[in-house]
Amino acid sequence: MTNTRSYFPNLLHGADYNPEQWLHRPDILEEDVRLMKLAKCNVMSVGIFSWVSLEPEENHYTFEWMQNVLDRLYENDISVFLATPSGSRPAWMSEKYPEVLRTNADRTKNLHGLRHNHCLTSPVYRKKVRQMAEQLAAGFGDHPAVIGWHISNEYGGDCHCSTCQASFRHWLKEKYETLDALNSAWWTTFWSHTYTSWNQIESPSPLGESLVHGLTLDWKRYTTDQTVDFYQWEAAPLKEKRPDLPATTNFMEEYEGLDYWKFKDVVDIVSWDAYPTWHDNEEEAVQAARTAFLHDIKRSIKGGQPFLLMESTPSNTNWQPLSTLKKPGMHHLSSLQAVAHGSDSVQYFQWRKSQGSSEKFHGAVVDHVGHENTRVFKEVAQVGKSLERLKEITGAESHPKTALVYDWENRWAINEAQGPRNIGPGYEDTVQKFYRPLWDMGIAVDVIDSEQSLEQYDLIVMPMLYMIKPGTAERIEAFVKRGGTLVTTYWSGIVDENDLVWLGGLPGPLRNVLGIWSEEIDSLHDGQTNQLTFTSGNLSSQSYQLKELCDLIHLESARSLASYDEDFYQGRPAVTVNAFGEGKAYYIAARTEEAFYTDFLKQVVEEAGIEKNIQTELPRGVTVQRRVKGERSYLFLLNFTKEEKTFSLHDKKGWDLIHQESVQGDCSLEPYGVRVVREE
Amino acid sequence: MTNTRSYFPNLLHGADYNPEQWLHRPDILEEDVRLMKLAKCNVMSVGIFSWVSLEPEENHYTFEWMQNVLDRLYENDISVFLATPSGSRPAWMSEKYPEVLRTNADRTKNLHGLRHNHCLTSPVYRKKVRQMAEQLAAGFGDHPAVIGWHISNEYGGDCHCSTCQASFRHWLKEKYETLDALNSAWWTTFWSHTYTSWNQIESPSPLGESLVHGLTLDWKRYTTDQTVDFYQWEAAPLKEKRPDLPATTNFMEEYEGLDYWKFKDVVDIVSWDAYPTWHDNEEEAVQAARTAFLHDIKRSIKGGQPFLLMESTPSNTNWQPLSTLKKPGMHHLSSLQAVAHGSDSVQYFQWRKSQGSSEKFHGAVVDHVGHENTRVFKEVAQVGKSLERLKEITGAESHPKTALVYDWENRWAINEAQGPRNIGPGYEDTVQKFYRPLWDMGIAVDVIDSEQSLEQYDLIVMPMLYMIKPGTAERIEAFVKRGGTLVTTYWSGIVDENDLVWLGGLPGPLRNVLGIWSEEIDSLHDGQTNQLTFTSGNLSSQSYQLKELCDLIHLESARSLASYDEDFYQGRPAVTVNAFGEGKAYYIAARTEEAFYTDFLKQVVEEAGIEKNIQTELPRGVTVQRRVKGERSYLFLLNFTKEEKTFSLHDKKGWDLIHQESVQGDCSLEPYGVRVVREE
Amino acid sequence: MTNTRSYFPNLLHGADYNPEQWLHRPDILEEDVRLMKLAKCNVMSVGIFSWVSLEPEENHYTFEWMQNVLDRLYENDISVFLATPSGSRPAWMSEKYPEVLRTNADRTKNLHGLRHNHCLTSPVYRKKVRQMAEQLAAGFGDHPAVIGWHISNEYGGDCHCSTCQASFRHWLKEKYETLDALNSAWWTTFWSHTYTSWNQIESPSPLGESLVHGLTLDWKRYTTDQTVDFYQWEAAPLKEKRPDLPATTNFMEEYEGLDYWKFKDVVDIVSWDAYPTWHDNEEEAVQAARTAFLHDIKRSIKGGQPFLLMESTPSNTNWQPLSTLKKPGMHHLSSLQAVAHGSDSVQYFQWRKSQGSSEKFHGAVVDHVGHENTRVFKEVAQVGKSLERLKEITGAESHPKTALVYDWENRWAINEAQGPRNIGPGYEDTVQKFYRPLWDMGIAVDVIDSEQSLEQYDLIVMPMLYMIKPGTAERIEAFVKRGGTLVTTYWSGIVDENDLVWLGGLPGPLRNVLGIWSEEIDSLHDGQTNQLTFTSGNLSSQSYQLKELCDLIHLESARSLASYDEDFYQGRPAVTVNAFGEGKAYYIAARTEEAFYTDFLKQVVEEAGIEKNIQTELPRGVTVQRRVKGERSYLFLLNFTKEEKTFSLHDKKGWDLIHQESVQGDCSLEPYGVRVVREE
Repeated sequence: MTNTRSYFPNLLHGADYNPEQWLHRPDILEEDVRLMKLAKCNVMSVGIFSWVSLEPEENHYTFEWMQNVLDRLYENDISVFLATPSGSRPAWMSEKYPEVLRTNADRTKNLHGLRHNHCLTSPVYRKKVRQMAEQLAAGFGDHPAVIGWHISNEYGGDCHCSTCQASFRHWLKEKYETLDALNSAWWTTFWSHTYTSWNQIESPSPLGESLVHGLTLDWKRYTTDQTVDFYQWEAAPLKEKRPDLPATTNFMEEYEGLDYWKFKDVVDIVSWDAYPTWHDNEEEAVQAARTAFLHDIKRSIKGGQPFLLMESTPSNTNWQPLSTLKKPGMHHLSSLQAVAHGSDSVQYFQWRKSQGSSEKFHGAVVDHVGHENTRVFKEVAQVGKSLERLKEITGAESHPKTALVYDWENRWAINEAQGPRNIGPGYEDTVQKFYRPLWDMGIAVDVIDSEQSLEQYDLIVMPMLYMIKPGTAERIEAFVKRGGTLVTTYWSGIVDENDLVWLGGLPGPLRNVLGIWSEEIDSLHDGQTNQLTFTSGNLSSQSYQLKELCDLIHLESARSLASYDEDFYQGRPAVTVNAFGEGKAYYIAARTEEAFYTDFLKQVVEEAGIEKNIQTELPRGVTVQRRVKGERSYLFLLNFTKEEKTFSLHDKKGWDLIHQESVQGDCSLEPYGVRVVREE
Repeated sequence: MTNTRSYFPNLLHGADYNPEQWLHRPDILEEDVRLMKLAKCNVMSVGIFSWVSLEPEENHYTFEWMQNVLDRLYENDISVFLATPSGSRPAWMSEKYPEVLRTNADRTKNLHGLRHNHCLTSPVYRKKVRQMAEQLAAGFGDHPAVIGWHISNEYGGDCHCSTCQASFRHWLKEKYETLDALNSAWWTTFWSHTYTSWNQIESPSPLGESLVHGLTLDWKRYTTDQTVDFYQWEAAPLKEKRPDLPATTNFMEEYEGLDYWKFKDVVDIVSWDAYPTWHDNEEEAVQAARTAFLHDIKRSIKGGQPFLLMESTPSNTNWQPLSTLKKPGMHHLSSLQAVAHGSDSVQYFQWRKSQGSSEKFHGAVVDHVGHENTRVFKEVAQVGKSLERLKEITGAESHPKTALVYDWENRWAINEAQGPRNIGPGYEDTVQKFYRPLWDMGIAVDVIDSEQSLEQYDLIVMPMLYMIKPGTAERIEAFVKRGGTLVTTYWSGIVDENDLVWLGGLPGPLRNVLGIWSEEIDSLHDGQTNQLTFTSGNLSSQSYQLKELCDLIHLESARSLASYDEDFYQGRPAVTVNAFGEGKAYYIAARTEEAFYTDFLKQVVEEAGIEKNIQTELPRGVTVQRRVKGERSYLFLLNFTKEEKTFSLHDKKGWDLIHQESVQGDCSLEPYGVRVVREE
Repeated sequence: MTNTRSYFPNLLHGADYNPEQWLHRPDILEEDVRLMKLAKCNVMSVGIFSWVSLEPEENHYTFEWMQNVLDRLYENDISVFLATPSGSRPAWMSEKYPEVLRTNADRTKNLHGLRHNHCLTSPVYRKKVRQMAEQLAAGFGDHPAVIGWHISNEYGGDCHCSTCQASFRHWLKEKYETLDALNSAWWTTFWSHTYTSWNQIESPSPLGESLVHGLTLDWKRYTTDQTVDFYQWEAAPLKEKRPDLPATTNFMEEYEGLDYWKFKDVVDIVSWDAYPTWHDNEEEAVQAARTAFLHDIKRSIKGGQPFLLMESTPSNTNWQPLSTLKKPGMHHLSSLQAVAHGSDSVQYFQWRKSQGSSEKFHGAVVDHVGHENTRVFKEVAQVGKSLERLKEITGAESHPKTALVYDWENRWAINEAQGPRNIGPGYEDTVQKFYRPLWDMGIAVDVIDSEQSLEQYDLIVMPMLYMIKPGTAERIEAFVKRGGTLVTTYWSGIVDENDLVWLGGLPGPLRNVLGIWSEEIDSLHDGQTNQLTFTSGNLSSQSYQLKELCDLIHLESARSLASYDEDFYQGRPAVTVNAFGEGKAYYIAARTEEAFYTDFLKQVVEEAGIEKNIQTELPRGVTVQRRVKGERSYLFLLNFTKEEKTFSLHDKKGWDLIHQESVQGDCSLEPYGVRVVREE
């Protein structure tokens, strides 16, 4: 799995930089460079929203300002991710070629405005995007400042225009070949929905079809494919010019609209934009674990290869419900968290606050005041200093033995499915609930989709895997058979890749490995509860409250570990384990209170012999992550509380690269403190 | 009132059956018949969503599979309701004739999709629907399996296309003859809305007119009329072919969009689809009483004639917020509840769960597992067994002496009216509040609209009858004069059938019979309360909390029974009674807490001499209903609690047809238990 | 500042009168006059929604009925505000000229319906409106009953049709001259939004641009300008015919969509429609102070000149969530409150309840019952009697020394700004919070926008003045320099008139006068709090809870009065004062609990030597307002509680015009009581 490649000589530190907003203020452009060096920035992302500045009228290119910017940055040892500007095209293009504008699901046609407002298929738009990429390749491909290509920005959304409808139908024909095959896959006989010509197929719409789940699923798949294709189309001239430079596009957290795994083979590096809402009303560790989870997805997509934190805010955002400031230390901590999980960069949106328009109050390295004497600037400079000290970590990887399965197509299907809980099936939240105890224990985790190889893992946690795609059940069986430990839950093994329910007994192709038959599933109203009590094992006689979903199962080859305490299914199994080959497969039949996740996973981890990053009981809110580079191993100790925390390093010792001191025995972390320890 | 007619030799038990989904699986079609017999099913509804399977291309009919299905069912003694498939037309029709697609109130045109997406007026659609009905009549009218026609499915919605606008204007011309008459009825001088040509009239729209209440009312009336007309149009060929077979269309609970009373003379049997949310967070009796109320409406529409429970779920739905399972016994109990209130059938949606699309998780007799060894199948079979034992009840009727008035047009008007409580006037809920104590006492009730004859009743409960249509006040006066007891409330007698307020003093034409003048009505904010205290009668000195609406009335010929305790109207009458002819008319001036309904109706019932089904105090959650056939009378004892309940049968005794035992004296009901007692 | 002019010989009392609804009932029209005299009404607003009655077909005018109405009113000593009927045009016009119909922001075109549904720019509509005004001028301009022109009704909304787009572009060209200037002002380089032709500019739309704040601001400004222009266009023929008669248009409370200050020079009298929700769940004084605030705005617009209360309800509305009745006394009290704040009239919507359509349940002087024997009629007559007794007050003015700044453009900008609190920046509410203690103390206040002269004031309270327009900072500096006291808060001095952030340190042009630098602002989640404690002055060691927004400032020339108690900004200044010239400038850095406003403003008022209307501590819920006419001064004592309140008049004494008695020493007010005292 080591397809890792280290593109950069050191950890990157930088920001989105929009000099085109300040061309009338050369003094400010000058000052920018002085401040970048003060903040120890070594990279800037340039050109992301510069289309109209690069091509103010059709085929008239004005690249001089960009040339000057790249020159000046290069002279000052600052590298550049050069962006294609397709995230927001100029007004003249919408005016001249209205077909580039997006059509919404309700078939209204957009006016020019905002961002991401383009048809993914439009031949005109594709032509324009290609021309711009070619011009950028020609103009700046050989510029020594440029170290990579930042393709577009935060792809998202879909287009329902007639060109896209034709394209979708073409995609369907490629996939299904015949209408009969499509009708079968979508079970269109239901409600007399059988298509008798390809032209009858329209993308899902609130004005038309929204309940043929196969159609909805395929539309989402198509939109991902079309976006991947769009990415490749605009990246091609740049990769052709400079195959040695990495290309990436910045992802948005766990954005539902695109299956990011489908970019696995087409981006050279994964990068993403992280905007956790620190200091909200939940325990800080909730955001921390959620963000860790998102980092782990990004690292896992390319098999452990370092990724880039392409955007984050140095202070606050302006588009979230509240623009809460990061408290002192939190910026440093959250930046290092990214590195801990595999990022080779800490980058910001944005270098300097714009004077006007919609994101003028978005946090930036340089505030409107214009100088470096701000709390935020100093915190940024502190991160710059730490990243310099961590230089040797550049390119280090992670090789977890545990994987958590989180699958986009499963998510789409489960959320569209109708039943058993339309007020929110809770897939995303449930996966988080299983991630959290692993984070608490300091256990490294890959977060993968259900199509990945399981060969490198010892423990697979796979909640609510409703959709079993071809090959998945086989891989799971092989995994358990050779000694792996599987943990799964209710509402798994329900449908195939077309959202057709498995006939003959659920959980369908998982029935064998789990050794159970699920007859029916109950859905409890808010406030209604049941309870499970363990009847054997270390948790014996421990009870946990249940809510929302309770699966009524029958044992086949499995044995019961815990059973229901209430209602007409009292006494029936609620947690089971099935010995299968050399391994074990656990099934959790109901949705539990949070203590269950902690206690149960602790047992499973112990039994499965999964190694923690440090063999110690970590204080609540503290986690440990690890990166490895050749022979060297680096422990990241992260304290997501506002209190100092002390704990034993057990048998670990080493050199704290941040504090430049050796650590062993008891180790303390400041409030929001972080240590990075090169292990001896 | 005995227009009752018994169409069937026994109680029906069956389901919607969609064999067209499984034509590729003859083994499953074969298995279906075996399972139907196991479940004691004797009827299937077939063809409801089969249009594309019956006519896959225009004028090309493929009836062979249907022929086979009917033959096979008939051979196995299973009858058929044959459906017209107009609930969901094929995609080819929308493609070829886009005018069949519905136009929404905001004047957007729908795409093909979902169900019920047709223009009610479209000549093309009507032609196609007629052709299909003719083909079905010709193809299957003489098939011995067919025992009735299931016309379309759950009619609903409206269409605002230009064809419908023209049709609406035509309807208005028929009704009003002149624009002057229309302008007067709609009081269009307000806000200068006077129409000076018919073409200026458009159906209500969020983009146009929404506050001319007369227009809105007439649009709703028109939509009902057009739907009734559509029903007749598609039923005609079938009735022509087989006038002896009953035709019905399945209603949806108390669906606001159609005044089901207008179907009274055009359907042969009333049928409906019941989906109570058992086991939600309210006391079970709330759902039970609400469902009983809905059954009573359906029975009342055709004057007590048995109706059909055309759809219900054997376990759960998949389209409600939660898919809660019915606990053991509840399916049997709720099925028998339908029979208790006058149904001659228990039918399900659906026989077998579909493998895909939007209702794949909707409860069914046969689950995806495909065999009979499920809890649900067994509960269904139990119902089949009970229905066999109740065979002699087929065709039995009810003759309540009490009627509750619940009027669709009143509901439309009260909800559109603006003032005095736009956050929810609460009509529907208030009617339910009056129904519940009657159900608790085991008193048989007809639920009628305000246009029905009152001759057969001794007690009329008529809350919030805001709209008094021509003849209603006269019928009410005559009813009270000849000795009847009337109970009505605040916000009654406000407008005429055009939503024009009665001038000269409210409650308008009810002022005489009630003997009061209502000067103004107060609207209390949430959390604000008042109180009434009885000053005479059995409830003397009893107090009840008031909320939301308090009517400020003056006594004319009435006398005060209770008065307000607070605010500036302290001391003014809050409950009054007026002796009128031989009878009495009660007026409740304010919205009360729930205890009031119980205590007050108990008094009224006693004074009016209304007979309970059993002269006993029933345990909370238990009710008694009765059906009568010739000399024979059947008591249904129903326990909607999860505890065993015991109570005295008083002077009743008889033979429990379900448990096959005689009962008298103290009688106990199991949790969710039911007894059906043929009285001696 | 005395541009005051007294148009009327006495206080006006009257209502909107819609005789066109009752032309078929001459008996009712006759009865109306009798009842008007009984209610002591001396003015009626006629013709507001009469277009179709005045011009039932194009160019065919039917004015006879209006002539009769005016004659009859005049004969009975009742004057008339004659209205132009443009608030609701006839259906025939929409039918014949669809271009008069409004286009919504989402570019859907409206159908005919409701009110205010016209294009502001449509040449056809403007032509028709002008013709009607000319006809009215010719027909009734010389009628002796007419004492003023009621132009249209409650202007509001905007139109996005292509005609309006062209008009908007024209307005922008006039304002900016070049696209470069516009692009700079709107900071369009952000997200590549630079316009390269005027035709690319479209009004804000959910389907297009919504985040270019400069565009949104200018669209709102344009809409106000276009509405002012529309007003002038339709008023012109009437003013030309009768320049001596005042023209007005009735405003709606603090309607966000129109900057009412822009009507300052074009209306002769300000008038408005007041609909407070008395008796809701808040302390009565909350509505009272809010209503007082709205009155004060209306009086301030024309520099203290009396305004008109053009609409209010005699009892309740029908369009608010609840139609709560005014309790006895409240109608009299709230009517006199208007007069206390400068109104020369008390007028109602509506004279008589309409029989049908959307406002049939809106309160009126004459109810559907049709006679005078109602509680409401009597309360109205009581107001009529009081107004007669107050005749000498007609034309009296107010000259407060305190001004509260409340600025429409600031409001638009702050609400669009995105950050730091998108869940509600709370501008409007915060201004109210500062108004309330002044009302409690009985201090007269002007409520002005930020473009007004400050010369007549000693104290300026200016919360959250985010936008500093040209000249404002200079006026504020001059004001403080000459000895004035300024109170302002966090989130002030952030942007210029184009919503461009001030560079170089906030609060931008207020930094000098305030003597502070604001580095960053924190946004607290709901439930999170901080605290400030005063460290000097009379409030020393007093603490107040903080929430939502906390500004982190540095002292420059200011000194700290209070500091933060918690979080990382503990100890930093939270309230500051800067001595500047002869005056003082206070800065409140955080959002506080309500007690702070009371305590702090009390101190400020004392130190600034602001005179209360009575030098006494008023009971909670009681306020005192004053009007002055030449040598005479009138005190209005108003009790907004349901208890009798007694307090000392201090050195005041005089003659109570309402109760016709002299008052001095201790004075008591009945529940909801009012006294109007001519001071000796």
